Amino acid sequence: VLGRHQYLVLADGRFGPETSKTANSAIRYLPERVRGVIEPRSSGRTVQEILGFGGNIPIVSTVADGLALNPTALLIGIAPTGGQLPESWRPALKTAIHAGLDIVSGLHFHLADDTEISMLARAHGVQLLDLRHPPGNLPIGTGKARLVEPTVVLTVGTDCNIGKMTAALQLRSALVARGRRVGFAATGQTGILIEGWGIAVDAVVADFVAGAAERLVLQAAEGNEIVLVEGQGSLIHPGYSGVTLGLLHGAMPSAMILCHQPTRTTVSGGGGAYEWVRLPALGEAIRRYEDAMAHFRESRVVGVALNTYDLGEDQAREAVARAAEETGLPAADPVRHDPAPLVDAILRQARSDERKAV
Amino acid sequence: VLGRHQYLVLADGRFGPETSKTANSAIRYLPERVRGVIEPRSSGRTVQEILGFGGNIPIVSTVADGLALNPTALLIGIAPTGGQLPESWRPALKTAIHAGLDIVSGLHFHLADDTEISMLARAHGVQLLDLRHPPGNLPIGTGKARLVEPTVVLTVGTDCNIGKMTAALQLRSALVARGRRVGFAATGQTGILIEGWGIAVDAVVADFVAGAAERLVLQAAEGNEIVLVEGQGSLIHPGYSGVTLGLLHGAMPSAMILCHQPTRTTVSGGGGAYEWVRLPALGEAIRRYEDAMAHFRESRVVGVALNTYDLGEDQAREAVARAAEETGLPAADPVRHDPAPLVDAILRQARSDERKAV
Repeated sequence: VLGRHQYLVLADGRFGPETSKTANSAIRYLPERVRGVIEPRSSGRTVQEILGFGGNIPIVSTVADGLALNPTALLIGIAPTGGQLPESWRPALKTAIHAGLDIVSGLHFHLADDTEISMLARAHGVQLLDLRHPPGNLPIGTGKARLVEPTVVLTVGTDCNIGKMTAALQLRSALVARGRRVGFAATGQTGILIEGWGIAVDAVVADFVAGAAERLVLQAAEGNEIVLVEGQGSLIHPGYSGVTLGLLHGAMPSAMILCHQPTRTTVSGGGGAYEWVRLPALGEAIRRYEDAMAHFRESRVVGVALNTYDLGEDQAREAVARAAEETGLPAADPVRHDPAPLVDAILRQARSDERKAV
Repeated sequence: VLGRHQYLVLADGRFGPETSKTANSAIRYLPERVRGVIEPRSSGRTVQEILGFGGNIPIVSTVADGLALNPTALLIGIAPTGGQLPESWRPALKTAIHAGLDIVSGLHFHLADDTEISMLARAHGVQLLDLRHPPGNLPIGTGKARLVEPTVVLTVGTDCNIGKMTAALQLRSALVARGRRVGFAATGQTGILIEGWGIAVDAVVADFVAGAAERLVLQAAEGNEIVLVEGQGSLIHPGYSGVTLGLLHGAMPSAMILCHQPTRTTVSGGGGAYEWVRLPALGEAIRRYEDAMAHFRESRVVGVALNTYDLGEDQAREAVARAAEETGLPAADPVRHDPAPLVDAILRQARSDERKAV
């Protein structure tokens, strides 16, 4: 179902480079399937003007305005902290359902649990697609993902919402372009939207996070040489660190790519609730992730993916050079520049894994 | 409701010192409320003969046999890996419901979601009490538990099911005996059974584990000088490490007590699925827990609680002495011996916290 939809994307009041992750990823990776974005503050402008990519996709004020663009579904493109359904969105959802649009949501809140929305959906014969709704039969993790044949690479980060999914998707494209068979394990609502399958590990009952990640890796490994696993959260995030560690120990990666935004100095999000937590230096972050794996297997951070969208070109190149020097690792902004240094690092890891297996 | 029940405890086929945690804790901490245990392999014997404590509580073969003991509820006293309802238990549950007993369960599986069981319960006017069912309105953790006035002590472990709850409960009693006002934050089904309140953090949606722990600590802090938080899992458990880290970062303890069983060498449970994971040395475990907190606040392991139930008295004393020497910390088996060394360590921490606050 997800693969056929033409989206009108709800980003009401929060459309921007850092505040509308799901919307932005749909625009970056499924541009031919995004008909328009709802953001009253910017209506009449194009997505390109706001994000710096996305071309002429139009921005409109309301669902009603967007219907002229012939969407087949309303995609909820922003994720309020806590994932509940803001009451202010209800009219937009109702208008969309009345117009026959399916609703695609990545909220923690399951739309199907809202009596009004679910009854209206049934009455109008539209589907409510909850990207975050996990399967019901997940196993407890046992660590067996460490035994799969492909090289498993997890993107990890110094913070939430810093580019872990984007780095993984960019690396996937580049590896595919080099003729590699690559599986992608989507672990969040946006990755699932783009890939068409996956499990939102942060929406799983806590005991089953590692088991969910393990199942994703085993599935993505089939017939592939390399598995890229979309990372979540950060080991030093006071709210989400548990998801990060569960995902790490479920995925049991052979190697990791560390994602960071050079201009960010404290943990973001939560309406400023995390400003007391400084982001770790790259070296400290690398040590933490490698140490968290060391009891199970050697797993090294083999490259640094920087998110430099908010820097000028010179500053971006400088930041990349500094990260490489600071860590002694290949570094790149895989969106802005050629991800080749990171791709090479992953292929070196794959060759080394192969040698060990022989 | 929980506080009034007289339990018949289902431990079918798994009643023993290491295999029936909920049953054993009910017997240890609520002995006056356990009427009998169902375990066909040992029927006719007493609980004391099997566990080494519990006195003359009788063991019977079936629910039907146990009804003569006048229970008011059937307590599911064992937890299969994964927490589903084994089909073989269904007849016992049905017999209990027919006899008018409430059912108290700590399974992940919600009895209320089983059509047959829930309809039967309704027909007979009995309650299905799911200890693991979390509240629906949990926050995302923000780290604010670090700011509460009481000294917060979390029990952490080298493995699951190794004595973290028991150590916390023993320390609570000993601190209360010294006239301290102590709050207890129960984080698992057994702790909740004993305390009458709490949240099973492993049953919470993963994004909310830290938030649940934070809420428990804030609540347990009210009017108290010391908060003891029941730990869960272990940072090196391939299945449950995420719960452990989320709980740690939600609780933001001032200090930790490390729990260990000297005879255990590899991660237990899961039908042997974890035998490839050696338990860390005490020093490595201490380093991991302290390091996981270091980015947020200094939090030290201030004592080691050993579980020596499977050692002779001489060996037990030797193990305690060795743990103290190896770590340079106070050590004790708080069940077998006087927990004074650990109590003193917690009180030293409380005095030090007070000095810092002044």
